[in-house]
Amino acid sequence: MPSLINSKDQLLRERAASVIPGGMWGHMATRYLGSAYPQFFKRADGCRVWDVDGREYIDLMCSWGPNILGHHHRAVEDAAARQRSLGDAMNGPGEVLVELAELLVETVAHADWAMLQKNGTDATTACVTIARAGTGRRKVLVARGSYHGAVPWCTPSLAGVTAEDRAHLIHFDYNDVASLETAVEQAGNDLAAVVVTAFRHDIARDQELPTAVFAKRARELCTAADAALIVDDVRAGFRIDLAGSWEPLGVRPDLSAFSKAIANGYPLAAITGNDRFREAATKVYVTGSFWYGAVSMAAAIATIRTLRDTKAIIGMNAAGERLRSGLDAAAKKLGLSLRQTGPVSMPMVLFKKADAFCSAALREGAYFHPKHNMFLSAAHTDRDIDLVLQAADAGMAAAAQVA
Amino acid sequence: MPSLINSKDQLLRERAASVIPGGMWGHMATRYLGSAYPQFFKRADGCRVWDVDGREYIDLMCSWGPNILGHHHRAVEDAAARQRSLGDAMNGPGEVLVELAELLVETVAHADWAMLQKNGTDATTACVTIARAGTGRRKVLVARGSYHGAVPWCTPSLAGVTAEDRAHLIHFDYNDVASLETAVEQAGNDLAAVVVTAFRHDIARDQELPTAVFAKRARELCTAADAALIVDDVRAGFRIDLAGSWEPLGVRPDLSAFSKAIANGYPLAAITGNDRFREAATKVYVTGSFWYGAVSMAAAIATIRTLRDTKAIIGMNAAGERLRSGLDAAAKKLGLSLRQTGPVSMPMVLFKKADAFCSAALREGAYFHPKHNMFLSAAHTDRDIDLVLQAADAGMAAAAQVA
Repeated sequence: MPSLINSKDQLLRERAASVIPGGMWGHMATRYLGSAYPQFFKRADGCRVWDVDGREYIDLMCSWGPNILGHHHRAVEDAAARQRSLGDAMNGPGEVLVELAELLVETVAHADWAMLQKNGTDATTACVTIARAGTGRRKVLVARGSYHGAVPWCTPSLAGVTAEDRAHLIHFDYNDVASLETAVEQAGNDLAAVVVTAFRHDIARDQELPTAVFAKRARELCTAADAALIVDDVRAGFRIDLAGSWEPLGVRPDLSAFSKAIANGYPLAAITGNDRFREAATKVYVTGSFWYGAVSMAAAIATIRTLRDTKAIIGMNAAGERLRSGLDAAAKKLGLSLRQTGPVSMPMVLFKKADAFCSAALREGAYFHPKHNMFLSAAHTDRDIDLVLQAADAGMAAAAQVA
Repeated sequence: MPSLINSKDQLLRERAASVIPGGMWGHMATRYLGSAYPQFFKRADGCRVWDVDGREYIDLMCSWGPNILGHHHRAVEDAAARQRSLGDAMNGPGEVLVELAELLVETVAHADWAMLQKNGTDATTACVTIARAGTGRRKVLVARGSYHGAVPWCTPSLAGVTAEDRAHLIHFDYNDVASLETAVEQAGNDLAAVVVTAFRHDIARDQELPTAVFAKRARELCTAADAALIVDDVRAGFRIDLAGSWEPLGVRPDLSAFSKAIANGYPLAAITGNDRFREAATKVYVTGSFWYGAVSMAAAIATIRTLRDTKAIIGMNAAGERLRSGLDAAAKKLGLSLRQTGPVSMPMVLFKKADAFCSAALREGAYFHPKHNMFLSAAHTDRDIDLVLQAADAGMAAAAQVA
């Protein structure tokens, strides 16, 4: 009787259908998920969310990335509240802007400077614009299938997009050196930038870490052409390495885009750059009404410091290992074929009966996503992961029963 | 001795210069203002702001629009705090999304539906994309000099912008019916949309209200071509008429973009549309990591209800009349030539010695802008306006002394 179980969610969906096109837009529309998934949420705390019908879930999405320390993290909320009591959007930024820019420059290895925005798309678009301004060139290389945002030059849907919006994009295949070299050749002396996600995290396919060979070759090609290497760290940023997701590879980009986890859920994005592109960054005009809001900046400072001081990435990796090995063991026991790829703290779990698995696990209180990478937070304890694994057992049993 | 007076601001500027390209980006960079203007702010309350050196100003900018009820407005802060204690960014929106969409549809006359974003630029860009998706056409008409945002298709600087980013823009002159007709003709059967600001509020020039003839003709031309009439109400929205800024003209757009004042400083943008473009709105893919954040939505509901229940626009207009007539009288007394244009609640004050005027008024505690329109709020009392006029007297005396 789903109409009873989901009664409040159902009622809200009906109201939404009349005042919102299709009832919901964008990546949080549950029409991309099974019908068991709630559309509307009542509250969140730590690594848990409650839907409007009062059901509790251990959350493996972290709001699709942002809540890296868990909801209502004390240090972040205190910093935000302190700044809020002073002021948020004012006629100019607060001192926190300078503190945050200094913290980013100190934390992100390639960074000589930083600028702030609101959306991940703002950050990736600003990087591309700065690369073009700094090189005087137009061609931008992107990997086939990579997501870099939701405006005409990069959005996955072509509705409302003109050919000209993408006239200067050239595609290569992620981790494929030869295809990157071909694309660079194709750009000729008009190469402005290579844009590449921190790792390959395309929808509904196995994740892939960048090979060192690929990352180093991308750096070499950009250096040789005096073009910008842009790492889109919007999704992975602050979960792989606080110094930047390609730092463990020994490869430093010219420009990086960050957002999602930067302020533990407060709306913020950032780009960092090196001195090669500092002057170009002064020439582009990028701005927004809320880009100077001090509360999100105060939250970001507290978030980054907490991640650093608590070595949160180590903890998230341990939680990720526990989840991955637990899921593997459970699948093996049932003879289910399961694919888990990418960084353990950003789990991607793909198998043929994903919908049956996810719906059943959801009923047991674990919020999995059937085809998008997930996100662990520093709030996920061993006990939480064990509860997730219990729910996953129910999910696998359901999946095993599907013909 | 400005280095003493501005000592903390100066220190922050020096730190900023090393970690932020040019020391500051975008419209809040004080390099566009006189050197007397502070770059960094300590706090804000009601209609007042305090810079980092502790000087207090009555604010005529309202953070460039957002703070329409004044900083720390009780009803807004209470609503935001209530939602924050539940959750902000979750795996989906809260009930407040449906409530806000319903409130927008009930409030904005042309609206059959609403969608939410973060930046004004997100809203104008989404309107254009939906118009193209809904018409299957490409050409977008914009007025010369109008500001619609800060991404390549519309940003005022051409640095980093390619010709293709603007390949399908055709320009007309605001309020010039003949030029609009010519542009429509030029678009031929490829006309997707006419985009027009609620009134003409270009930088450093007299503001102009749209004539009824112009507005009605724009509506007729779009209707005849089955193209979208898009009113960019990002700046003016909620200050002219809660039903939409063109409602007093009897002209209803197909799509409207809102942001700035919608949530009294909390980051939010919205588009509203009619049923002609509902299906198109389901086809475009627009989203952002923080577009589902419930706190800004709760703040928006409280803001719009307060504006409605307190008839705030009447009060802002009265404050604007008091300011305009006071400034006119003072200028007349000194024989200064002063131009004040546009809606009184969004004052544009232009005269030849604006820098001298503004710097002196600033010293006396009134924050004027020399070439951008300003914004009054519901927190500006008669007493505040009188204090502004006192500061303006000092400003005019200074201006009168300039050769």
